[in-house]
Amino acid sequence: MATLVAAQKSRVSGSALEAALDELRHLLGEARVSTAMAVREHHGRDESWHPTMPPDAVIFPETTEEVAAAVTISAAYGIPIIPYGTGTSLEGHVAALEGGITIDLTRMNKIVRVSPEDLDCTVQAGVTRKQLNEYLRDTGLFFPIDPGADASLGGMAATRASGTNAVRYGTMRENVLGLTVVLSDGRTIKTGGRARKSSAGYDLTRLFVGSEGTLGIMTEVTLKLYGIPEAVSAAVCTFSSLEGAVDTVIQTIQSSIPMARIELLDDAQMDAINRYSKLDYPVAPTLFFEFHGTEASVKEQAEQVRAIAEEQGGGGFQWAVTQEERTRLWNARHMAYYAALALRPGARGLTSDVCVPISELARCITETKQDLAKSTLQGTLVGHVGDGNFHMLYLIDPENPAELAEAEALHERLVHRAIACGGTCTGEHGIGYGKIPFLQAEHGAAVSVMRQLKRALDPSNILNPGKIVRM
Amino acid sequence: MATLVAAQKSRVSGSALEAALDELRHLLGEARVSTAMAVREHHGRDESWHPTMPPDAVIFPETTEEVAAAVTISAAYGIPIIPYGTGTSLEGHVAALEGGITIDLTRMNKIVRVSPEDLDCTVQAGVTRKQLNEYLRDTGLFFPIDPGADASLGGMAATRASGTNAVRYGTMRENVLGLTVVLSDGRTIKTGGRARKSSAGYDLTRLFVGSEGTLGIMTEVTLKLYGIPEAVSAAVCTFSSLEGAVDTVIQTIQSSIPMARIELLDDAQMDAINRYSKLDYPVAPTLFFEFHGTEASVKEQAEQVRAIAEEQGGGGFQWAVTQEERTRLWNARHMAYYAALALRPGARGLTSDVCVPISELARCITETKQDLAKSTLQGTLVGHVGDGNFHMLYLIDPENPAELAEAEALHERLVHRAIACGGTCTGEHGIGYGKIPFLQAEHGAAVSVMRQLKRALDPSNILNPGKIVRM
Repeated sequence: MATLVAAQKSRVSGSALEAALDELRHLLGEARVSTAMAVREHHGRDESWHPTMPPDAVIFPETTEEVAAAVTISAAYGIPIIPYGTGTSLEGHVAALEGGITIDLTRMNKIVRVSPEDLDCTVQAGVTRKQLNEYLRDTGLFFPIDPGADASLGGMAATRASGTNAVRYGTMRENVLGLTVVLSDGRTIKTGGRARKSSAGYDLTRLFVGSEGTLGIMTEVTLKLYGIPEAVSAAVCTFSSLEGAVDTVIQTIQSSIPMARIELLDDAQMDAINRYSKLDYPVAPTLFFEFHGTEASVKEQAEQVRAIAEEQGGGGFQWAVTQEERTRLWNARHMAYYAALALRPGARGLTSDVCVPISELARCITETKQDLAKSTLQGTLVGHVGDGNFHMLYLIDPENPAELAEAEALHERLVHRAIACGGTCTGEHGIGYGKIPFLQAEHGAAVSVMRQLKRALDPSNILNPGKIVRM
Repeated sequence: MATLVAAQKSRVSGSALEAALDELRHLLGEARVSTAMAVREHHGRDESWHPTMPPDAVIFPETTEEVAAAVTISAAYGIPIIPYGTGTSLEGHVAALEGGITIDLTRMNKIVRVSPEDLDCTVQAGVTRKQLNEYLRDTGLFFPIDPGADASLGGMAATRASGTNAVRYGTMRENVLGLTVVLSDGRTIKTGGRARKSSAGYDLTRLFVGSEGTLGIMTEVTLKLYGIPEAVSAAVCTFSSLEGAVDTVIQTIQSSIPMARIELLDDAQMDAINRYSKLDYPVAPTLFFEFHGTEASVKEQAEQVRAIAEEQGGGGFQWAVTQEERTRLWNARHMAYYAALALRPGARGLTSDVCVPISELARCITETKQDLAKSTLQGTLVGHVGDGNFHMLYLIDPENPAELAEAEALHERLVHRAIACGGTCTGEHGIGYGKIPFLQAEHGAAVSVMRQLKRALDPSNILNPGKIVRM
């Protein structure tokens, strides 16, 4: 890892940094400005295989005004600024590629407002999704977007995250109503209000959602909320073939059954989950389902899906009706990433994230698994297949250049397979700096438009430089 | 109207126009370049009270390549370009404020591709929503977004349109997967593929959706499609008070009942509909409902809503179960605008379009109607109330400056009422040039960001100049 850290080229001069830090200490106090190596390293890495690239300093603001003042100070010295939520992203989003100051938003963890009657709320960017749902517990409402990790809602907005139940509730794209954003020149704007829909000018909310801190720093997020369904049930179904599982998904979606979750796990992933979570599911392609609605509609949906699954060679449904059974089932699913990593102690994950039209899903998954089988690497597959999104996780020793190169070659072939059929290189993880070459392959000339937008809003390239587009 | 046309200041010199038209005739042939006054006037007006402002010429391209070549030619001479779909917009979007060349996209009416298995399609921008649904008839699929008018899908994307069933299916924001766009310099980009979700870079699709032709000319649109529901039923319910109707809506939404449509019409609008469509509904606040789902779930939804309505003083449901009855009901609703205009022969409509959090809906509507009652004007109200969106239509003689001023004052107070409670000045019609002052009131400093984006993508301000932001 040491060599990889050395590749980081700071553009920050020592004197500029010291001058900026003096001002920041004056703004925030000594205790909220850190240059300790442990703190810097912690903020320079995410949960992926990407190497640690620590910033020069980390600051801990508590208000939008403090963020705006900190950005103004950093901008005056030309120092890069990297926003940080929980560090659970997967494409090097938080790496300080060019040095700079990381803005840790975890102290901005206040729930500003909940309006149960309007099914919306406003939170500071550092509030995590579990914190919000805990807070909402007595209101009968919940925030459904669930990327697995207990990520911050600002971070989820910044990466356009989604997860297991996007098939029903959409992604952060559909669920953010408005943002408070600090711009590169220190100005603060609100991108939208609380109206459910608006045609009032350019869609700044959607421009900032998914911009990964490169166009502005989100400090508050206004979100849609949903009523907790009257009835929820979940089930697991094992298939003799991957095609059978995928065809079940396709028919379910085509039948307009309003699934809350429909998740695919391959045999390798089921094996990993059994070992990690001490379970005894059959080691075979498996679908995890969740149904939301009234008692009657949940029953009807489940019957429809069971009939489809049986036609496609699905074994009997194992039901998880009680909250406790459901929690066990979805915890196992949420631990899939860590379960897979545990298959090979010390390994890190190179995670793919393609999303394709569902008619291409079976072919794309099959070819990807065949390609893996021909390699020397081990991997597991999970998919939010109702959306056509799946993750092949390649287990690698990041210190071994040959393994990394092999995983990157497998990944590259997978991405080109997805793009060729109208898909995307990333359904929900984002570009960071890990997927920049694929962005070009996917969007072509449109990347130059992204560059024009970046230049317009951050002419000095101080906001999370080196992510999404290189200037 | 003559004086209003005279206010238009063309920035196009005669010699530049002649040179550009020569090149355009070479590109498209004589028949597809028109300078006839009748053609120009037709393209310089929409369905609103806004005065006709004809372009200097109208062209009729048939391919993306022709649009790109035409934009390149116009840009070389600094001539404004205004895209035109069906002319059914309401905020002067098509008015040639500074002269220029209108690109009529109605010949771009090919359905490029339908993928029933993926529930998506790609159409040229001039295809109308009814044309698409006619084409889809045998596939079991439909495109739900329904703004009333048989608008072009490019125009609907450009104004971020929605309409009666956005409460279930979302707006154009949620239903456009990707666009082919010609930029101000003549380059063509694709903003997205066919993946249901993507985190690959800035959300260019959402940036162009709602940009009203000011950032690029859309030539193709990739859309989500939906399975035609197994069962559809509709109903009409009359209320003794407006509050009862609105409270029914709020409780229905809060109960997570997946309504397909839930429309409010006030007593004045019901009177207008009865006269125009020869119907005999009670002249009272009324909700129109539509339910989509399986036979069982539609029945369940309808029972739930009926119970809520009865609690709120709603009279008995009048059911419209057959296709014929439903068509009559929704045709009456769709004709609401024309029915209202017919209350005062020769009048034009000044249409408001605010959208507010639903908890504010009853107060906002009540105050708006009280304000109208104190005026000399006549007006009617319809609302896509499940989203908090409603239209107060003020009937005016556009030649009478006092009436126009009174309507504008009523409208202004309504907009500020909506913005004060977190709402928007326009839920679905867009800004055009009619609502520019309100955009500033609503978005404040964020408008300067919109201006930065416009400058970045259209530095010479040739794309539909004077709309959304003034440069």
